Amino acid sequence: MNISKFVAPEIIFGKNSIKQAGDACLRLGAKKVLIISDDGVVNAGWLEKVMDICKESHLPFATFIDVTIDPTDHEVIYGCQKFIENECDAIIGVGGGSVLDVAKAIAIIATNGGEIKDYEGIDKIRKPLPPMVMIMTTAGSGSEVSQFSIIVDSKRKKKMTIISKTLVPDIAIVDPYTLVTKDSDLTAATGMDVLTHAIEAYVSIAATPLTDVQAKNAITLVANYLRPSVASKTNEEAKEAMAMASLQAGLAFSNAILGAAHAISHAIGGRFPLPHGEVNAILLPYVMDFNFIAAPKRFSEISEYMGIDTRGFTQREAGNAAIEFVKELSHDIGIPKRFREVGITNDMVDILSQTALSDACMITNPRDMTIHQVKEIIEQVL
Amino acid sequence: MNISKFVAPEIIFGKNSIKQAGDACLRLGAKKVLIISDDGVVNAGWLEKVMDICKESHLPFATFIDVTIDPTDHEVIYGCQKFIENECDAIIGVGGGSVLDVAKAIAIIATNGGEIKDYEGIDKIRKPLPPMVMIMTTAGSGSEVSQFSIIVDSKRKKKMTIISKTLVPDIAIVDPYTLVTKDSDLTAATGMDVLTHAIEAYVSIAATPLTDVQAKNAITLVANYLRPSVASKTNEEAKEAMAMASLQAGLAFSNAILGAAHAISHAIGGRFPLPHGEVNAILLPYVMDFNFIAAPKRFSEISEYMGIDTRGFTQREAGNAAIEFVKELSHDIGIPKRFREVGITNDMVDILSQTALSDACMITNPRDMTIHQVKEIIEQVL
Repeated sequence: MNISKFVAPEIIFGKNSIKQAGDACLRLGAKKVLIISDDGVVNAGWLEKVMDICKESHLPFATFIDVTIDPTDHEVIYGCQKFIENECDAIIGVGGGSVLDVAKAIAIIATNGGEIKDYEGIDKIRKPLPPMVMIMTTAGSGSEVSQFSIIVDSKRKKKMTIISKTLVPDIAIVDPYTLVTKDSDLTAATGMDVLTHAIEAYVSIAATPLTDVQAKNAITLVANYLRPSVASKTNEEAKEAMAMASLQAGLAFSNAILGAAHAISHAIGGRFPLPHGEVNAILLPYVMDFNFIAAPKRFSEISEYMGIDTRGFTQREAGNAAIEFVKELSHDIGIPKRFREVGITNDMVDILSQTALSDACMITNPRDMTIHQVKEIIEQVL
Repeated sequence: MNISKFVAPEIIFGKNSIKQAGDACLRLGAKKVLIISDDGVVNAGWLEKVMDICKESHLPFATFIDVTIDPTDHEVIYGCQKFIENECDAIIGVGGGSVLDVAKAIAIIATNGGEIKDYEGIDKIRKPLPPMVMIMTTAGSGSEVSQFSIIVDSKRKKKMTIISKTLVPDIAIVDPYTLVTKDSDLTAATGMDVLTHAIEAYVSIAATPLTDVQAKNAITLVANYLRPSVASKTNEEAKEAMAMASLQAGLAFSNAILGAAHAISHAIGGRFPLPHGEVNAILLPYVMDFNFIAAPKRFSEISEYMGIDTRGFTQREAGNAAIEFVKELSHDIGIPKRFREVGITNDMVDILSQTALSDACMITNPRDMTIHQVKEIIEQVL
C-alpha cells in the first residue's frame, strides 16, 4: 500500500441535531454567519428553522438563498458579495449537494480571491477557509463530509471538480428528520447518487481499509433502505438509514475519490439540467460492467454487501448479479433507463466524452479508459 | 438513535509516512516543536529519525524523552516545563500510548494551566491546545486518533481517564514500518489492547454505524494478523494489518468509548506496573461473558467477524465461541491467564473494584455493574 490520507469533519448525527447549528458556529469562533440555501429548502421551512436557531444562540447572520440545481460560477460570485457586504466570518450551508458545494465555493473565494475556475482540480487552494458548518438535507451528495465542490463553469459548460482537504467542512450536521420533506423523485435520485459514491469509492484505485468499511456499509444500507425511503416520506427508520448511508458513502469517496460514472456524469451535468443522481444511476451499471475486469474480487464482494447469496457463483456471476441489482433497484424507484428520455442526442457524444476524460474523477477509475470506450458507454445509454 | 458525534484527526497512513512529520507541523503553523518520546523509541532509532526529518523541514525543536510506562502527573509537569522553557508552540509525540498520552497532557497544561487532575473526566478542557502531530509506533493504544489521555495520579494511585474532543490530534501519522522494532511480548500485549478496544466499542451503549464499521474491521484484522505479527518482527503484511487495526479500533473507541474491561484495567494499572494490553487481555473474556446478556446479537456478530462459522449456532453458542477465540488467541501469543502471575492479591480487590466503578469507561459498558459484580470478575482471574 502507498501512503494514504483520510480526512473527516466533526460529525453530529441524529434527529434534532440541526438544533446544534448555532452553537457549532460559536464554538468555531464565528461572529456573523452567512447562511446559504435554496428555494426548495426555504419552502420546506428549514431555512427559517436555522435562522431561529442562530437567533437563540445570539449569532448574527445574513442569508444567500439563490442557489440553483447544478450551480454555476455566477452564483458563487453573488454569494461571495453577500459574504463580504455583510461582513460575515463564517458559513452555514443548509441544503443538498448544490447548496453545500456553493457554500464551499463562496468560502474559497472569500479568503483566496480570484475566480472559482482558478481552483479546479486537486489541491489548488492556498489560504485557510472561514469556519464552515454544513447541514445536509438530502442524503445524497455527501458534500457535508467531503473534500469536493462541484461548480458549473458557465462559459465552458462543464462541471468543475474542485478537490482539496480544506473543503472538508469543520462540522457536518446530519439530521435525518430533514429528509421527511423530500419528494419521492428527489429521494430516488439522491439515493442512487449515494450508491454510485459507495461503489465507485470501493473499486477506486485510491481505496483503503478506512474508506472500504464506510463504502461497504453504505452499499448495504442503500440495498435495504432506499426502496422503503422512496415509498414513504415518513418512514423514519429508512430516512435515518439513508442519511447514514449518504454520510458513510461521503466519507468513502471523499478520501478514495470516484470513477468513470461521475466523470461522465459531470460532463453531462455541465450541459443538461438533469438530476445528478439520476444521471449516475443510468450510467452506473454500464460503468460497473466495463470496470469489472479491473477488480473482479471487489465487484463480487459488492454483490455480497447488497445481500445477494453468492455461494457457488464465479466472480463474474457475482459481478453480474450486482449489476442486475442496480438495474432492478433503479427500475423499482422510477429512474429512467436511457438518456434519450432526458434529451441527450448522438451528436453530443464526442464533446461529452472529451470532457469526461479530463475530469478529475477519471484518475481513480480502476480501468484505464480511451475516448472510444467512454463514447461506447454513453452510446449504450442513449 | 440519539444524537451521536464522531471526530477523527487527519490520518496519514503507510510505509515511510513518518517522513511527513516535519511538513505536517509546518502546515499547522508550528514555529518550534517539542518532540516527546521514551527510552524504547530512542533506542529503536525513531527519535533520531524524527529529529532528522524536522531538520530537513527547517523546523526548530526541543525534546522530552523521559516518559515511562503508565506515565504519571509528574512527567506531565516536567514535560510542560520543557515546552515553556524552550518556547515551543507545537507538539510531536513519537511512541506508543504512554508517550502520546503524555504529549496530550502536556498540551493541556501548556495552554490551560493548572494540574492534570483538574481535567479528569469528560469535556473539562476549555482552551484550544497547541497543534499536535502524533506518530504511533506500537499498534495498540489508538491514542494517535483518540480523544483520550490516560495519566496516573501518583497520590491517588489511579489512572485518570481524560476525555475531550480537543485531545484528538490534528494529524495522526501511522507508519507500519515503525512496528518492526517491537519485540514479541509488546506486540502481543498491544495487539490484545487493540482487540479489547474494538470489542468494547462494538458493544458500547454509545456505538453508532460510524464506529461499528471500524470496530468490525479491526476485529477481523486482529483475528487474522495478530498471531503472525507476534511470530515475526519483519512480516510486513502483518505489521500493516495490525497498524490499520489499531487505527480503526482507535477511531471506534474514541467515539463509542469503552467498557468494564478498561475500567477495571485502569484501576489495576494505577497500582501495578503491568502492560496495559496484557491486563485487558486477561480481563476481556470474563467481561465478555458478563456483558453477553446485554447484547447477545452483537456478541454473536463478533464471532462472525473473527471468522468463526456460526451457522446453526444459537446467539449464546456464538457468543461463547467468541470468548473461546479470545482465550485461545491469548494463549497462543503467551499472555498470562491470571493476575496472580503478575502479583495482585485478594486483599486488593475491594479498592480496585471501587476505583473501577468510578472510571469514565464504566459509563458506556452495556451491562450495569454493582461493586459485587466487579469484584466477582476480578476474583475470577486472581
